Amino acid sequence: MTNSTTRRALLRGTVATAALAAAGTATQGGAAHAGAAAAGAAHAGGADGEQRDGGAGPEIGILLYDGYSLLDPTGPAEVLSRLPGAHVTMIAERRGPVRTDTGDVAVLAERSIAEIDRLDVLLVPGGGNRGTIAAMRNKELLSWIRRIDRHSRWTTSVCTGTLVLAAAGLLKGRQATTYWASADYLRSEFGVTYLPQRYVRSGKIITAAGVSAGLDMALYLASQIAGETTAKAIQLAVEYDPQPPFDAGNAAEADPQLKELALRLLAESQV
Amino acid sequence: MTNSTTRRALLRGTVATAALAAAGTATQGGAAHAGAAAAGAAHAGGADGEQRDGGAGPEIGILLYDGYSLLDPTGPAEVLSRLPGAHVTMIAERRGPVRTDTGDVAVLAERSIAEIDRLDVLLVPGGGNRGTIAAMRNKELLSWIRRIDRHSRWTTSVCTGTLVLAAAGLLKGRQATTYWASADYLRSEFGVTYLPQRYVRSGKIITAAGVSAGLDMALYLASQIAGETTAKAIQLAVEYDPQPPFDAGNAAEADPQLKELALRLLAESQV
Repeated sequence: MTNSTTRRALLRGTVATAALAAAGTATQGGAAHAGAAAAGAAHAGGADGEQRDGGAGPEIGILLYDGYSLLDPTGPAEVLSRLPGAHVTMIAERRGPVRTDTGDVAVLAERSIAEIDRLDVLLVPGGGNRGTIAAMRNKELLSWIRRIDRHSRWTTSVCTGTLVLAAAGLLKGRQATTYWASADYLRSEFGVTYLPQRYVRSGKIITAAGVSAGLDMALYLASQIAGETTAKAIQLAVEYDPQPPFDAGNAAEADPQLKELALRLLAESQV
Repeated sequence: MTNSTTRRALLRGTVATAALAAAGTATQGGAAHAGAAAAGAAHAGGADGEQRDGGAGPEIGILLYDGYSLLDPTGPAEVLSRLPGAHVTMIAERRGPVRTDTGDVAVLAERSIAEIDRLDVLLVPGGGNRGTIAAMRNKELLSWIRRIDRHSRWTTSVCTGTLVLAAAGLLKGRQATTYWASADYLRSEFGVTYLPQRYVRSGKIITAAGVSAGLDMALYLASQIAGETTAKAIQLAVEYDPQPPFDAGNAAEADPQLKELALRLLAESQV
């Protein structure tokens, strides 16, 4: 088989012609690009040049820190990277691999915080106890978050990333959500009004519940940046038609034994 | 605040005592470990030693190749890494950073395929056209997949990773699922019976639909490896109670215009 026949065939489905046309005329995708202009053209200060189409879309920066939970940054990155013209940049205190809470996986931070002074979207993921606490105490990181937030269009968090935003002082007097087991802490330590929702918007700040809730939040954010049609197309692009085999993900309905086991599995899996 | 008080408080919720007890007695988690023994103790041949608790749990290997889609490997990795005693290893032809289809993000491959000759679970993610086609034509990669499959307990794929399994000859006469836009190709090129489900099990092979379907598949796999209670606890641990803001992720219900836009957004976001 040749490259061209395989490429044609691979995405044939029911929309072969459309897909082919789209692939061949990427820069003419009017509908897909309609939302990008509205997303703002402020770019990451330190990023060295554009990677794809001139950067009409949003600059999305995701902060990694030692001990984050893998899905927190990668779920939203998958969704938001499909926004027209978007760039997603993984950022950390220093460039290089940053390990997850389990220690098993590392995602590369492409930029250090010193290199980035503007973002359209900032996302702060959550992590295990160790990683979250260290991030909450890292004055340089908190200061950078505040600096980026000053000019961002959207400042967002997933899971215990909400606690990091709160530690940076960004959630004063706001409503927010966080990981179910951290809700009391968010309330008592920071006086934040916790709402048990998948995501909570308060002005330009959007917080998401635990880990996988970042996917739902990112789709909402995509709709705010590029419109509902584009967000729906992204949902279809990542085939997000969730059908978990069980119905056990809602802490409000979980019994204490399952909660205990969930927290134990987390604790045991983390380094 | 001190480390210990913060740690206590962070996960207080309604199960503080249980969580604390669990964190302090990680090796005694009888219920959590019950499934691990059944998961088999065959370990990655080249892996240099255990990282956590002696490795009673499954060795899970995820194959990365240039141009994979970020959520395909990371969603299942998040879920499966919470299995008692599990190790998740990112594997590629060569060690080092492996870039996604958008070029924006790189996950580190911790091992090369030459270093791994046994896995309990193999997962092959999908990717963009370029990455999937290159993987389907990479004889070394396909040969390694066949070699691992010979001894694996589970061989799995997400999205167009199913096409890679098919190219390796593992899906002959089987039912499987894949990315919605690749269904025709899977049928016509490999004679595989496509089922439009989130995941399809055929013997020890489990294939998942597009991108986000890896999460649903991983929870099912978790239940097969460690039992339903553990899988439900993992679902709660990652707060997977999906509530996307739209209902647009099912290709069977999507109109042609949305499909066209979805494929165009994918094509434009990929390098």
